[in-house]
Amino acid sequence: MVLSGPSGVGKGTVCEELMKDRDDIRYSISATTRKKRPNEKDGENYYFLSLDDFNQRIEDGDFLEFAKVHGNYYGTPKKYVKEQIKNGEIVILEIDVQGALQVKENFDNAVYIFLLPPDLMELRRRIVGRSTEDEKQINLRMENAKKELSFIDKYDYAVVNDEISHTVDKIDAIIQAEKLRVRNVKGVQHHD
Amino acid sequence: MVLSGPSGVGKGTVCEELMKDRDDIRYSISATTRKKRPNEKDGENYYFLSLDDFNQRIEDGDFLEFAKVHGNYYGTPKKYVKEQIKNGEIVILEIDVQGALQVKENFDNAVYIFLLPPDLMELRRRIVGRSTEDEKQINLRMENAKKELSFIDKYDYAVVNDEISHTVDKIDAIIQAEKLRVRNVKGVQHHD
Repeated sequence: MVLSGPSGVGKGTVCEELMKDRDDIRYSISATTRKKRPNEKDGENYYFLSLDDFNQRIEDGDFLEFAKVHGNYYGTPKKYVKEQIKNGEIVILEIDVQGALQVKENFDNAVYIFLLPPDLMELRRRIVGRSTEDEKQINLRMENAKKELSFIDKYDYAVVNDEISHTVDKIDAIIQAEKLRVRNVKGVQHHD
Repeated sequence: MVLSGPSGVGKGTVCEELMKDRDDIRYSISATTRKKRPNEKDGENYYFLSLDDFNQRIEDGDFLEFAKVHGNYYGTPKKYVKEQIKNGEIVILEIDVQGALQVKENFDNAVYIFLLPPDLMELRRRIVGRSTEDEKQINLRMENAKKELSFIDKYDYAVVNDEISHTVDKIDAIIQAEKLRVRNVKGVQHHD
């Protein structure tokens, strides 16, 4: 399951709440070259890597996808995702649209969800409220948000993140429905 | 929304319970040439038509789909379905696989759900339990059920009707998820 959406829309909180609700979801921790925020922990929110280390990983083919966003690199380590899927778990990738499009080339059975802000002013308020960013960075993120929104038709589902409990309910319904897809219901397919 | 499944699997009960739960679903009443069962009402369960009347309706192009099942004709009146969809309502068609395939040719945005019995013996028990059918009719329905099951890969979702409340919850989740599909979320599509 791929969850994308503009920076500041609340993807992280949605993932946290989903994980509390369900025990069939594994969170794929991304690697990044971006600076650690004060509240973040290495190996929990991200694997924080130097640019050199990140480039080495790219060279070694360790990433399922990687992308440069707001001047920093982000990537999904391949090994963990493959292991979890093999075990029948749902893996949630919280990644940007560039990364999502790369994943789409390799996983045709993934579910793509785009998380939307109630409106763009609300998004600005959330980014400012995070208060670890200066004005220039905020404007960059807003520009990027508008660009990202134009990719929404590449996604399967669009969920407005108005209230966290509603958002989690909606994504729960999507997961429940996707598990009922004929291709995902084992033992009912009689034909190819 | 198209709901199919072997005769006796409980499609009727599932539709009734769904309608109690939700006010956004309209039930499309089929026309049929089959005999009315004692508990059925004309214009409520079905429009019971003579073979001549049914043939006239076919000729007039009044049906969205029609099919011969267990020796009787069944058809979906076109007018009601089109009106309700125009009003933004969900219309549920409780029809057999032949009819579903006909609908599929005309509505690419419909959702196809196949209702499964927990197993075929359970299905037999339900058909016998209905006790309005003789042995030959029961065998015909069982044969037909096996044939219908082979069409399941033409459907989007497969729902096992083990317990009615679970089944209704599952279909609720499917409806909720389908409403969140990008193509169904108004005002979020920026590209074609």
